[in-house]
Amino acid sequence: MPTDIEIAQNARLERIGHIAAKAGIPDDALEPYGHYKAKVSLDWLDGLPEKPDSRLVLVTAISPTPAGEGKTTLTVGLGDALNRIGRKTMICLREPSMGPVFGIKGGAAGGGHAQVVPMEDINLHFTGDFAAIGQAHNLLAAAIDNHIHHGNELDIDPTRIHWKRVMDMNDRALRSTIVGLGGHVNGQPREDGFDIVVASEVMAIFCLATSLMDLRERLGEIVFGLDRQGQPLRARQLQVHGAMAVLLRDAIKPNLVQTLENNPALLHGGPFANIAHGCSSVIATRAGLKLADYVVTEAGFGADLGAEKFLDIKCRKAGLWPDACVIVATVRALKYNGGVPVKELGTENLAALEKGMANLERHVDNITGRFGLPAVVAINRFDADTEAELDLIRRAMRARGVDVVLAEHWAKGSAGAETLAHEVVRLAEQGKGASAARTAPNPLYPDDMPLWDKLRTIATRIYGAADISAPAKVRRQIEDWQAQGYGHYPVCVAKTAASFSTDPTALGAPSGHVVNVREVRLSAGAGFIVMICGDLMTMPGLPKVPSAQRIDIGPDGKVVGLF
Amino acid sequence: MPTDIEIAQNARLERIGHIAAKAGIPDDALEPYGHYKAKVSLDWLDGLPEKPDSRLVLVTAISPTPAGEGKTTLTVGLGDALNRIGRKTMICLREPSMGPVFGIKGGAAGGGHAQVVPMEDINLHFTGDFAAIGQAHNLLAAAIDNHIHHGNELDIDPTRIHWKRVMDMNDRALRSTIVGLGGHVNGQPREDGFDIVVASEVMAIFCLATSLMDLRERLGEIVFGLDRQGQPLRARQLQVHGAMAVLLRDAIKPNLVQTLENNPALLHGGPFANIAHGCSSVIATRAGLKLADYVVTEAGFGADLGAEKFLDIKCRKAGLWPDACVIVATVRALKYNGGVPVKELGTENLAALEKGMANLERHVDNITGRFGLPAVVAINRFDADTEAELDLIRRAMRARGVDVVLAEHWAKGSAGAETLAHEVVRLAEQGKGASAARTAPNPLYPDDMPLWDKLRTIATRIYGAADISAPAKVRRQIEDWQAQGYGHYPVCVAKTAASFSTDPTALGAPSGHVVNVREVRLSAGAGFIVMICGDLMTMPGLPKVPSAQRIDIGPDGKVVGLF
Repeated sequence: MPTDIEIAQNARLERIGHIAAKAGIPDDALEPYGHYKAKVSLDWLDGLPEKPDSRLVLVTAISPTPAGEGKTTLTVGLGDALNRIGRKTMICLREPSMGPVFGIKGGAAGGGHAQVVPMEDINLHFTGDFAAIGQAHNLLAAAIDNHIHHGNELDIDPTRIHWKRVMDMNDRALRSTIVGLGGHVNGQPREDGFDIVVASEVMAIFCLATSLMDLRERLGEIVFGLDRQGQPLRARQLQVHGAMAVLLRDAIKPNLVQTLENNPALLHGGPFANIAHGCSSVIATRAGLKLADYVVTEAGFGADLGAEKFLDIKCRKAGLWPDACVIVATVRALKYNGGVPVKELGTENLAALEKGMANLERHVDNITGRFGLPAVVAINRFDADTEAELDLIRRAMRARGVDVVLAEHWAKGSAGAETLAHEVVRLAEQGKGASAARTAPNPLYPDDMPLWDKLRTIATRIYGAADISAPAKVRRQIEDWQAQGYGHYPVCVAKTAASFSTDPTALGAPSGHVVNVREVRLSAGAGFIVMICGDLMTMPGLPKVPSAQRIDIGPDGKVVGLF
Repeated sequence: MPTDIEIAQNARLERIGHIAAKAGIPDDALEPYGHYKAKVSLDWLDGLPEKPDSRLVLVTAISPTPAGEGKTTLTVGLGDALNRIGRKTMICLREPSMGPVFGIKGGAAGGGHAQVVPMEDINLHFTGDFAAIGQAHNLLAAAIDNHIHHGNELDIDPTRIHWKRVMDMNDRALRSTIVGLGGHVNGQPREDGFDIVVASEVMAIFCLATSLMDLRERLGEIVFGLDRQGQPLRARQLQVHGAMAVLLRDAIKPNLVQTLENNPALLHGGPFANIAHGCSSVIATRAGLKLADYVVTEAGFGADLGAEKFLDIKCRKAGLWPDACVIVATVRALKYNGGVPVKELGTENLAALEKGMANLERHVDNITGRFGLPAVVAINRFDADTEAELDLIRRAMRARGVDVVLAEHWAKGSAGAETLAHEVVRLAEQGKGASAARTAPNPLYPDDMPLWDKLRTIATRIYGAADISAPAKVRRQIEDWQAQGYGHYPVCVAKTAASFSTDPTALGAPSGHVVNVREVRLSAGAGFIVMICGDLMTMPGLPKVPSAQRIDIGPDGKVVGLF
């Protein structure tokens, strides 16, 4: 069995100019980065007319497990299959984070015969977007300490700066640091730390911005800390938001690559799905909707986090709404949710599967019931899946009026996802003429609901919780923001992805739990309030034997060890 | 008077494919980065035959002063002028460091009508090389702390790790830090710090490597610290040098851009001229010599540091040797060396000029006498320069048999450097047939001279010092390295650039001083011993009003405030 990188390196790639031409992008709107990657001109995209009848398809999943679900792989396979059945389709994905590539994760550009390529480039520096985002973030950090060093006119409180530094590296030693040591010439010592680049608010802003000038304005709104009177301080007051935007002027253009089947894909941005909203850029999604008849995109983690934020944050802010939703599951992951240990997932276990189905059922009910979206369940097929197991899933979904489709794109490419593509087309086009408007947006809560009630709505209606709670200090902070005019912001929940609750060991579909908000953060540039419920890791570490040890240049000059 | 960025933005750039074609690089050896930058395939370059009659021209300068000398500008102007008079010429420059762009320095891609473009790209992320170098450096740093965290099999002494982290940012708060705080899960607390990316040994290695596999081997040789028995520990022992090389596999290809006059230039690498050797990559220089009849390149700081290291480190290791040398000076800078304060440099002052001439004279004597290179003095012309002042310089140089040429490329482009170009051709081709071999290499000291004597040779013969000294501990370390088999390494001196001595206020040509070695460092991957004489700054800071405050997106979407 060839590895992902072997399949990718043996692919017959077309020059990016050919891929662009297929997508309707002329040569002079293209900025090539090598022969197989390019950025697309924003000016040219801005000049394109809207296409109100384009269809937006969201790929989401059950709660992630160590067994793997294959959401990105399915997004690529479905995009290829839609192109195969004659629907002009653009795939919109997040750019992978480079840090985890050297840890355990390996690549994040799909897998098997459903990948975006060139996979080595995509998983490493790609077109430099993350480096630019890190640089913009760290320029603000340097400006903060520099301002204090040169007299601190703004009266920045060094103990209440929450703007850390970032690096695209799994480096636990940087999580908690002291900076400014070494005496007067090095500034003032204070506690600090590093997050991984994808956790930066600049990344979230980047993915929600609608233009370079909108990006610049949002960067100016970043609240980086408090002054000694407790008043918020913004990047604009340090006058560095313009330079930060300059650092992002190339990055903000969406990146065009291709699938193994030479279909176009836009990879752009990649915010964390915990302290941010976890989906690719608004600019790329809008570009896709102008360029293609179908856009297939994914949201991070399971549907409780990724899809909820996609719908309540990204779609709300960008005026988008999907026409259909694919919920990805695997028999293995459902059995894991039913309590089966990883090494026994290859064995049929109908009892465990039935138990684990509760996870899929709740996600499906949320998508179809709470958000009112037409949905299909896609099962990424493994050899060990038995007919009895698949039947069990089909029966449970039939009771809900939701189809179950087996997807075999991993092994077969687009041919393996053709049935799924037809079902997605049926859902997205049902009851509509070719030029019908898209489904009306139906977010979970209105803008004017108070922040606290927004969280309660998410927790009780999506997570199955009985209630929410918070320490008095956190409640007070939420009330302060409500009073200060941030009440219209959506809420971005940071909690474990492994469970509907805040306990990662509570698999299936726990109910009646209380969601406790440990900490809250204002992302004033991105325009949302982060509510942290449980542990939050914003700088990963490396394992004992990191994949950096096997990643190498092979004898033929090719990259090896990147899975 | 238009600013540099205005001149650059009004330039009529040619598509990079056209520039490549002029340089003889076919389309399929080119990897475009946008329309005006490209990387050149190493495989293709490796396949090109050597051209033994190509001429290498080194541009160096008097000791740098706040008045400015214009070495990069002259390198570009001379390259354009050589092309103008019919010599097919490649300009080889360092890539600018991005951090200082946001401080005081502004751009570093030439100036006036002698620039390489697109200047905004070159001064910011360019093709991502520095981001890749930083990432490779920081991967090793993360691997070190990770190894300690997971049991420390190599018995790394946490108090003797000298491999810091890097960021391409002027950020004084990061100079001295404590990392690993926050308890067991974050590793072991220890003292650490950040250098700017150009100070990384990975940068020095990158610029001396001859191929990707040579780079990989050199990365493996990096000594990052000591174990608890005091034995050196190498990157190879952590098995991350392969992954570091993977991170650099695109960066290692030289970058092609153009001058304002649409002549080709290779910008590649940019090591610090203090703790490293301060010149662009060997790969780019060799590529230039295969592609063109003339290569014009520059070395950092004044000739005592930059040219000496170019000749004794880069040329020695790469088997190169220049055919001619241009020593850049300005009347202003010579008067500054004669004691005139910056604000009075616009007034004729023959007495001060005569005094300051000592600086130029010693640099010229070093280049022509110590290294035996044919040389010309180029005076970057300012309006305030008087004929009497220029005559004084001419007379002093005539006594040494060295011509003085006025250079006006800043105002006039190549036309302003045509006389200089003719003199350079005369020097480089004198007494030679078209196919004559280049001047025989004549470094200052042989490989087998002991390390201590190498430093003494540099100090007494180049700096005019009476002797060298060092604390007993430093002497012992040098003797240890001598005994351990590093005695054949060249010595890389880190001292102030402002003076021949280690005292930055000793202008002109101080003599009889003692050069004290405060600290020594082994750069085993780069293959040299750094001897630090005086203060060393490897992480700059930002000024009170950093240029980040004026750099912005203008109303037309162009970058403003980048000088």
